[in-house]
Parts: sequence; structure tokens; C-alpha cells
Amino acid sequence: MYSFKNDYSEGAHPSVLEKLAITNFQQENGYGEDTYSRAAKDKLRAEMQNDEAVIHFVSGGTQTNLLVISYLLRPHEAVISAQTGHIYANETGAIEATGHRIIPVLSTNGKVTPEAIEEVLNAHYLRPHVVKPKLVYISNSTEIGSIYTREELQALYHLCEARQLFLFLDGARLGHALTATESNLTLADVAKYTHVFYIGGTKNGALLGEAIVFRRQDIAQDFDYSLKQKGALLAKGRILGIQFDQLFTDNLYYHLARHANEMAMQIASHMRQLGCDFLTVPTTNQLFPILPKVVIDALSESYAFYIWSNIDEQHDAIRIITSWATQQSTVSQFNKDFTRIYENYLPIR
Amino acid sequence: MYSFKNDYSEGAHPSVLEKLAITNFQQENGYGEDTYSRAAKDKLRAEMQNDEAVIHFVSGGTQTNLLVISYLLRPHEAVISAQTGHIYANETGAIEATGHRIIPVLSTNGKVTPEAIEEVLNAHYLRPHVVKPKLVYISNSTEIGSIYTREELQALYHLCEARQLFLFLDGARLGHALTATESNLTLADVAKYTHVFYIGGTKNGALLGEAIVFRRQDIAQDFDYSLKQKGALLAKGRILGIQFDQLFTDNLYYHLARHANEMAMQIASHMRQLGCDFLTVPTTNQLFPILPKVVIDALSESYAFYIWSNIDEQHDAIRIITSWATQQSTVSQFNKDFTRIYENYLPIR
Amino acid sequence: MYSFKNDYSEGAHPSVLEKLAITNFQQENGYGEDTYSRAAKDKLRAEMQNDEAVIHFVSGGTQTNLLVISYLLRPHEAVISAQTGHIYANETGAIEATGHRIIPVLSTNGKVTPEAIEEVLNAHYLRPHVVKPKLVYISNSTEIGSIYTREELQALYHLCEARQLFLFLDGARLGHALTATESNLTLADVAKYTHVFYIGGTKNGALLGEAIVFRRQDIAQDFDYSLKQKGALLAKGRILGIQFDQLFTDNLYYHLARHANEMAMQIASHMRQLGCDFLTVPTTNQLFPILPKVVIDALSESYAFYIWSNIDEQHDAIRIITSWATQQSTVSQFNKDFTRIYENYLPIR
Amino acid sequence: MYSFKNDYSEGAHPSVLEKLAITNFQQENGYGEDTYSRAAKDKLRAEMQNDEAVIHFVSGGTQTNLLVISYLLRPHEAVISAQTGHIYANETGAIEATGHRIIPVLSTNGKVTPEAIEEVLNAHYLRPHVVKPKLVYISNSTEIGSIYTREELQALYHLCEARQLFLFLDGARLGHALTATESNLTLADVAKYTHVFYIGGTKNGALLGEAIVFRRQDIAQDFDYSLKQKGALLAKGRILGIQFDQLFTDNLYYHLARHANEMAMQIASHMRQLGCDFLTVPTTNQLFPILPKVVIDALSESYAFYIWSNIDEQHDAIRIITSWATQQSTVSQFNKDFTRIYENYLPIR
Repeated sequence: MYSFKNDYSEGAHPSVLEKLAITNFQQENGYGEDTYSRAAKDKLRAEMQNDEAVIHFVSGGTQTNLLVISYLLRPHEAVISAQTGHIYANETGAIEATGHRIIPVLSTNGKVTPEAIEEVLNAHYLRPHVVKPKLVYISNSTEIGSIYTREELQALYHLCEARQLFLFLDGARLGHALTATESNLTLADVAKYTHVFYIGGTKNGALLGEAIVFRRQDIAQDFDYSLKQKGALLAKGRILGIQFDQLFTDNLYYHLARHANEMAMQIASHMRQLGCDFLTVPTTNQLFPILPKVVIDALSESYAFYIWSNIDEQHDAIRIITSWATQQSTVSQFNKDFTRIYENYLPIR
Repeated sequence: MYSFKNDYSEGAHPSVLEKLAITNFQQENGYGEDTYSRAAKDKLRAEMQNDEAVIHFVSGGTQTNLLVISYLLRPHEAVISAQTGHIYANETGAIEATGHRIIPVLSTNGKVTPEAIEEVLNAHYLRPHVVKPKLVYISNSTEIGSIYTREELQALYHLCEARQLFLFLDGARLGHALTATESNLTLADVAKYTHVFYIGGTKNGALLGEAIVFRRQDIAQDFDYSLKQKGALLAKGRILGIQFDQLFTDNLYYHLARHANEMAMQIASHMRQLGCDFLTVPTTNQLFPILPKVVIDALSESYAFYIWSNIDEQHDAIRIITSWATQQSTVSQFNKDFTRIYENYLPIR
Repeated sequence: MYSFKNDYSEGAHPSVLEKLAITNFQQENGYGEDTYSRAAKDKLRAEMQNDEAVIHFVSGGTQTNLLVISYLLRPHEAVISAQTGHIYANETGAIEATGHRIIPVLSTNGKVTPEAIEEVLNAHYLRPHVVKPKLVYISNSTEIGSIYTREELQALYHLCEARQLFLFLDGARLGHALTATESNLTLADVAKYTHVFYIGGTKNGALLGEAIVFRRQDIAQDFDYSLKQKGALLAKGRILGIQFDQLFTDNLYYHLARHANEMAMQIASHMRQLGCDFLTVPTTNQLFPILPKVVIDALSESYAFYIWSNIDEQHDAIRIITSWATQQSTVSQFNKDFTRIYENYLPIR
Repeated sequence: MYSFKNDYSEGAHPSVLEKLAITNFQQENGYGEDTYSRAAKDKLRAEMQNDEAVIHFVSGGTQTNLLVISYLLRPHEAVISAQTGHIYANETGAIEATGHRIIPVLSTNGKVTPEAIEEVLNAHYLRPHVVKPKLVYISNSTEIGSIYTREELQALYHLCEARQLFLFLDGARLGHALTATESNLTLADVAKYTHVFYIGGTKNGALLGEAIVFRRQDIAQDFDYSLKQKGALLAKGRILGIQFDQLFTDNLYYHLARHANEMAMQIASHMRQLGCDFLTVPTTNQLFPILPKVVIDALSESYAFYIWSNIDEQHDAIRIITSWATQQSTVSQFNKDFTRIYENYLPIR
């Protein structure tokens, strides 16, 4: 049984583990003041062409989201997010638990548009009886696999600047977004067209770890207090620094993400050739094929994945996720198995 | 330059890293539902002789403290802690940030007594104009190296039961407490005489990780929601499970802590023979020798440590911490160096 | 210029002021322990036929909503409310500020249905990645003037009991709901078919004040602490007790609400006779007539009211609110003025 | 039985009630936008000689304290207060409930000194492991009846300015402080030497109400959102505006406070003549005489008051509070009764 349920089923890229082992007995300062965290931050700042960027490493995505949002907002300020946004859909009210409303906007492709933001702003005029929208939360790639173009990100950023909003990009799967064939974005672009974003490690080769990046010192000033107060400051900060140092050596981070995307594209194009439809356009390492339930049943004897949503009486959409750890041989075997199952089913149709 | 600044200067015990490497490509469920987390919990439940114990692994101590306390308390309820307690002294108001007052009690040895608790309860009678004390927070070993005896823990627990308080034990250095020569406590005792406690991994051989233990399901019922909501539920929960599984195989956890204590005791008895005093009785891996400032200056050319407090014009107390990673050869060298420096200084006195 | 903007444009019913004056120099205990608060609670308990009801008086509606909800919920629990519910639409994120998500449900008539609740429960199965719906918030009368029937309230209550949810009824305009011609509910019914509700004083004859009613002591146990902690415990609790004592003497509360409804109905039936439509069926003291913009412009020279929503290029819906203080002569004059303006406009149509 | 338990045992000064009655049927805007609130603010700004002051009226003191502090502080920032400060001693953790630690400083006279503040700042250097002290909370008059001189307030303000702290003065009994014989402070001084303070109405002639004053718009910018979000924005804001308008007409506020002080001073000097000691120097309307328990028992047959603290086996300190409503005849009778009881007791001594 092979699992396509998510991109965190395995441990870390072997070179990451190796780096942890090699450095293991070196004594280092705690709380992120170690040699490796500093080195990793320097590499990231160079790559994003922003010397002023303030970077902190933390252990997970929900933690990152609640840290950043609760740090940037005053009590009466609110977040705008797609209804499918992770903070709205899957984080147990983590943002509201810090005191802030999330204002959901409907979106068919997982993305937030300038128009949707304007609409929210217009609907919240009745001061002081309504919350004050102050931060726009987007994910790239999104929770349903789509990506933002450079132009889309620029447009959002300019609107946010004009309306005094923060733009925060959740990069749990940023590697997959940046290395998608359709993407015209670089890490430097993301750093340029957001106020704060994070680079996801957990889903792209690290044991754990996310790198939070603020564009300037003045909006990150007391963030170290928040890290400690919310329980996010690891005593052995080195283990995050070492991993990011390794991931951003020789472009490993991009190689791993590109590989995950390629594995997904092989599956997607194979399915397409057989005539399958998709809930959202296959772009990154998350696929949402719409399949007959009998096919799904047969597939699930050898492969694990999530049923994503019901389409009609005979069809469901499933979610298939590939990762840095998905092997070519597994994908080839899957495609073979899929052909067999799918064609078996055809006559019934 | 060797650092005695803390017990988290190195990575993890090599066997822990090895276990991470061996299991690396095994696909596992996320969020703590993996094979290794389950196995580690079974081992811990067996060792603490409590089948009903509810166990969760998280990444750090401050995180643990705020999770447990905010989960157990209603908004108007408060915590009783020694003024030296980590939650009061060194966690950036993490508990207050979840809405709860900490009521500090003075203590010369870092421990909380039944009398101190009674005094707090008596002082908080003027309902509803005062907070309602509801949880007693203690650390074992304490922040200044002392430990609780079995009888002391029993007395606290019985008082808490009688007065409907929760007893929560912070075990960031629980291994060091349990393996101290003077200790008559076992893990099973701790499980029996607290409502909730945690077993610290970060300071005793893990890369990161603490095991939270609730004595019964009924007080831990919805704690999984809290884990997720507060950003503490790691996607790759396996990395915590694997480490605890390894630490509780062949008593590794105890071996490591006992070693740290022995290294400290060698330093302490050597200092004592030379006539040094200590701020608190050397008991576990934290030592607080009172030394002439000139000795401290000389020592600090070869060793790193914290100045803990000022004693008088000519003396300070320093903090020396040993760990599982402190080698015998290092301690022997330190003792030699210390003799030389200290005796050099004597004539001046 | 006469204002129909809301039902809190005047002070208090004269007999309420008189009672405050008569009792002014009597010394009374503070914090709600006065003679009048106790007397008012006894009257209310008798009227709602529930000796066990726990009653507290506070100063406003938003305060009540945040007090009750934050008291009843654990951190990971959420509220279900109509999208038009006051807590979702007009209270500046007061509930989220206490840490809880509000899950909005669409509703055309301002009411929440059992089906809508079931749908929310079904959508929140993925524990612990989603919040746990735990409380249903409804308003009677609703924010758009509609009311719940006895059968509707029973159905909601039974569902809540079955699914372990709290049912909380916002009664800012409860008097207007209970005295509506179409209503078959009594105060005793409301007390029987909710877990907690409040009786609005501010909008029905008091200077300020709302009476919070919990059905049983066991769900209200430590609520006094919450009152004090959230700044809602008035030193001179007497001023709330005296007002409720007076409002529930000789059915004044109902007389005032019925009068407000009657004034509204006179306006509504007059408009209807002239052919006007309404956004929602006129039922209580809030009317939402749909009028030509030219009529609205002409009306607004003599009367103040809110534009509620845009209907089409030529029409808006406005909100007209009557109250205990609206005089018959004012309504008669308004109807005359309306006829004149409306008929003037007709030829243009 | 006459009560000296507090200064909120009666209703409001008759002229305040009269003003409420006279204006009762005038239609006014809600939420503090009424004629009277505006007029009262203008009067206050004129009197405090600060045109830029931002003023809001709310219903109570605990509410004020939590509103102001939670508005001004970021999550990791803390409050410095005397251990006897109302927010630390008697408000059920209201400040911690908004997420902020209160750092208590010992004080024998209820006042905070610059030295105590410096000491707290020095103790909180270990960023980011400790909270960041950011606001100094003082009360005038204090909870034990003492007052700040102009020079003391200036010194605190200049220190706060130098160390980037906010100075917040709780004026629940500000009238009594300003009209004390020993006071050399004016309202304009208070406005000049604090960042924010409040003028207590509840304890000096109003039914309820406190006036919050921020020295400048830039530190009060979004405070209106906080008012609404925390449930403090009364629909009928007029009732607060009308009362403050009346209290600050013809110096009523000062007359009432001065009267309360005079009544207290008559009692104090009478007791002194008989040889009684006091826990704190009688200065305002709160007296803390130290009396033999037998005297206290005898007094308590005719007068109600609180036992404040135990002094020795035979003596307690009691608290006696006078108010604007305490009549000369009552005080004269009390002094007579006291002489009789006290002298009766003397032979036993």
C-alpha cells in the first residue's frame, strides 16, 4: 500500500539528516542564535535580494500563521482569506483564538482577487460597529493546488499598500509554487511583493520547520517576544537552522519541489490521456482528479489518498499528493495500475 | 572554550539520530497517528503503570506549559507558582497571554509548599472580586536544581485533591530529578501524584520534544483541539514519537540524566573540597557555586557559563549546567583548571 | 425632524425615572446585592415559572453576548449564527476577541433552522483540524424584525439538547417579539426552550440594562467571576435592579413593547394600502419598506431613518423603527405626510 | 443602621437625576454622538486646558482599566502597579484576561515611585524571555486613601516619557484626591502629566459613569473600536453625557468630593483627639482607623463598614468611607456614638 495522502509521510531528505548528524556535537547557542541559523538567514537574504529582511525559523505552519497574524494586528483588526484558506478551513480557529475574525471570501480557484478585497473593505464601513480589515492572507500554492502569477501578486501587493493592508503569503508549499512550469515568480519576487511570507520546510524535505520572512525590520521589531510568548522559540534552534541551511545549499529546496511537481504531472497527464477530468487544473504537487467511485474503490486497494468531495452519484474527486520522496518507479507503477483499473471499468460505463 | 551554559548546546543522542535515519523512508500517518508515537506512548504507560494515561508529544517546554494551563483553566481561574517558576520568571508572560494570572509565592529553594498554597487560597476569598486559584505549577527538578521527595509530592497532591486544584509538574528536567542520588521518586510516582506532568526530551537527549501526560481521559478530553489550535500539532508527529520511543528503550532516558548528574556531582564535590559554597545544595545537573569574581573572570577565559546573581562586592554565584553530552574528560580537565585558578587566587584572599 | 432611526433615541419610561428618584437615598449593597435587584429577579423567576433560573443584570447587549458566549465555551468551541446575527454583523468581532469563531449560516429571514445547524455540524467532522460548534445564537425578534414561533424554538432546543449544543437567545427586542400579534410564545416558553437568553431593557423603556437568564445553576456557576472580570459588574447594581423591578411591575414591559409594535403596524398597513412592498414581513417594531428613491428623499426632509439596502436603480429599502416613546400623533402625522409624498410621486411613475 | 462601607451606596446627586428627567424625551443620537456627551467633553477639555484631549464615557472602573490597558499594549507588554492597585488586588484578573501580566511592586502607602519603576525595568532585561514593561498604573486617590503631589506626578511622568512607558492614572476617586486639603494638583495638571487617565463619576455623584481622557489623538486613534468590541459602548450614551455635563456644571463634581472629604476629616480628627491611630494618614474620604476589637463590635451594631486588616490580637483596622451623600447630621451622630463607645471601652484597656 503506497500513500499519496500528503507530502509529510516520510522523514527528511537524507542530506538534511546527514547534516544534523555531522554537526551534532558542536556546541551552539540556543534560541536561534546558533551558527547555522545565522548562515541560513544570510543565504535566504541573498537569494531574495533583501538585506533588510528579518527571518525567524519555527516548527510548523499553523504556528506560523497565528504568530504572524496575532503579531501584526491590533485587537479590532481582521483578516481577509479565501474560504478555502488553511487558516479558515483547517486550523481549529487558531486565528480567532488570538482574538481576530477571519472574513472569508468565496473563490473557485483558491485565490484571492483585488476585487474581492475591495468588496470586503466596502462592506466594513460602519465604524466602530464592524471589524477593520487589515491583513490579506493568501497561500501559494493554494490549498487546492493553484498558483499566483507575478502579475497577480503585484496587483494584490499594490492594492494592499494603497489601502494600508498587510499582505501575508502562506508558503507551506512555496517550493511547489515557484517551480511549477506555469510559474513566473521567484523567491525574490515573493519577498518584494508581500509584507511577510513563509517558506515551508515541513512539506519539502525538512523534518520540520518554516522560515518566516518580514520584508523590513520596522514591522518585525518585537516579534522575538511573540515567538517566546507563544511557545515557538525552540531551545535547540540549531535544528531548524541546520535544515534550512542545507535546503538552500545547491538549490536543494527547488530540486525537491520540482521533483514533486514532475511526479504529479506524470500522473495528471496520464489520467488526462485516459479522459479524466480534474476539479482544479493540475499545476503543482496536488491533484484533484474526478473519478468514478468504482475506480476509486479499486485504486484504494493499493493506494491511500483522501476523498476530497462528492461530484455526483457516480463520481467523487480525490486528492493525490506527491512529494520530494515520491519515486519515479512508484509513479510508473501507479500509472500502469491506473490504466488497468480505469479500462476495466470503462465497459461498465 | 567549552560551554556549561545549558543542557541544550548539542544536538541529540546519536542513537536518536540513528533511529530517525533508519525509519526515514517509512511512510507514516501525520499528526501523531504514526506507529512510533503509538509505540512510545505504550512504553510510557507501561512504565508509569497507568493504562488510562493520555499522552501527547509536543515540541517545547513553554509550549507545553501554555497548552496545559490554558486547556485546564476557565477564564477566571489562576495558577499558583513559585516566584522562580519558569512560567513566572522566563516565559514572556505566556500564561497571562492565554488570559490567566500567575500568583507568585516566595520560596527559597524553588519549591512550593502546602502552606504556601493554603495561604494563597485564604487570601483569595473575596469572590467574585479576585481570581480563583485552580492549578498549582511545580517543576522537578526546579529551576534552581532542587528536587521534590515522594512525601512532598504526595502532600501537594493530597492538598490539591482536597481543595479541587490541579497539580501540574513541569518535567523539563524530570530525568535529572528522578535519577538524583537523593531522589526517592519514580516515574510511576509522578504519574500517581500529579494530575498532569511532562517528561522533558529537549534537555535530555532529544533534538526536541516533550511528552505531556494526563492521568485520566476525562481531564484530557478535548486536548487534541488545543494542540492544533495553539500550533503545537506537528505534521510529522513521527519525529517526536521516534525520539521518545528511542529514549525509553533500554532506559536510555535515565542513563543520560544520571550521567549528567554524575558529571555535575564530580564538579560540585571537587569545588566543595576546595572550600566553595553553593547558593543551593548541589543535587542535579544544575550547580550554583558562589565564587570570587576574580576566579569567575579567570574561569571564563576557558569556559562559558551564566552569572546567576550577585552575592557581595567580591562574589557572584554562577550557574554551571552539565548534560548527557558532557564528557568525563571535559569534567576532569575542568576540575584541574579550576584547582589551578582557585589556588592561584587564594593568596590574594 | 422626527427620528425613526432606532428604539434608543429617548431616555427611559417616566415611571422608571421616577422609581430611581424615589429610591435614590436609600442605602443599598453594591454589585447587584441590593433589595431591588433581588426583588426584580424574584418577579422574573415567577413569571418564567422557573425557580432555578440564575439572573444577572448588565448594561448592554454586546456586553451580554460576549459575556455569555465566552463563559459557556471552551477555547476550541464555536458559535453558529445567522449571517445577519448581531454578533456577526455589528459587534466589531466581540466574540472572536474572546477567542471563538462564529460560523455564519445564510438565512433569508434572519432565523436559524435545525437544517442549517445540522449542515454546520456535518461540515465540522475533521477533528481536531476544525473548531467544534457548541452554541447556537439566535435573536428574537431578529435583526430584520422577524420572530420565532413556539414550535420553531422547541425544534431548535430539542436539536441542541440532542447534539449537546447550547441554545442562546438574544432578546435585545424580546418584548417586541413576545407581544407581536403573530407570536405564540411566552416568557416562560423562552425560559423553557433555551439554555440562556436575555431580556432587553435598553430598547424597551430602560435607561440601560439587560437581564441575563440561565435556565439552571449548574451552567451559571462561576458566571459572577466573568461579570467582574469583563468589567460588567456595576458598583451601583441597584440602578439595573430598580429599572427591571419597575418594568416587570404591572406588565409595563409588555405594554411598552406592544405599543411600539402597534405604532409600526399602523405605518405598515398604511404603506401597504398605498401599494408598498416590504423586504421582510412587518411583524414587530422594525419595518423595512421598499420605496422609490424620490419618495425616500422627500420623506427624509421631515423624518430620520436608515437606508437599509439597495433594491434597484429606482428603489431602496429603508429601516423604520418605532418604540415605546413613539406617540400616536407622530404616527398619524407620518402617515399623512407619507400619503402626500407618495401620491405626489405616483404620476411620475 | 448607617453604612460607611463605600461611596456607592446611594443613587445619584438629585440634580443629576433631574437633568436626566428634563432631557428624557429629547431624541438624541446613540453611541455617544448625542448633544450632551459633546457638551460634556467640551467642558472637560476647557477645564483641563487641552483641546486635543480625546474623551470617552463608559460605565465602570474595571471596564475602563481593561479597555485602556488592552488598547495601549501589544501582547508581550506588561503593566507595573502597586500590589494594592485595584487592577492587581480587586478586579478578578481583568487585565490578565486581556493577555497582559501585571508586575506588582510593594508599596506601603499605595503609591508607585520612580525608583520602583526603575527596579522593575532593570529586572526585565533578558529579552525575549521576559515581558516588556510598558505601562505604569497608578490611582489617585489610591486604594488606601493617599494622594500624589504635583511633584510626584511630574516625576513619574518624566520617567515614563524618558523610558517610553505610558502613565495611566485611575481616577475612580479623582475628585476626592483633587479636593483634599493637602493636594496641590488640578485637573489640568493630571491631564498634563499622564498619557491617559479617567475621571470617576460612579463614586462621586453619578448613577454610573467614568470619563476616559487620552492626552492626544494619536494614542487614542482606534479606541472607538475597542469600546464597541469590549461591550462598553452604550446605545444610550446620552445618559453618561448628561451626567458628566451636570457634574461639571458649576463645579458640582468638586463640591461633592470636597464634602465627602470634609465628612471624613471630621471623623478622623475626632478619632485622633480620642487617641486613635490610623493605618494610613487620613487624607481623603477613605479612613483606616486602628481600633480595639471590642470597639469595632460595639460600633458595628449601629454602623456598617469593612474590617480591613488585622493588626494584633486586640486590634483591627477598619475602613470607613464617606461620600457626597453623607450628611453632616450623620457624622455628628457617629462622632457622638463613637465617643460613648470608645470611652466606655477605655477602662477595660
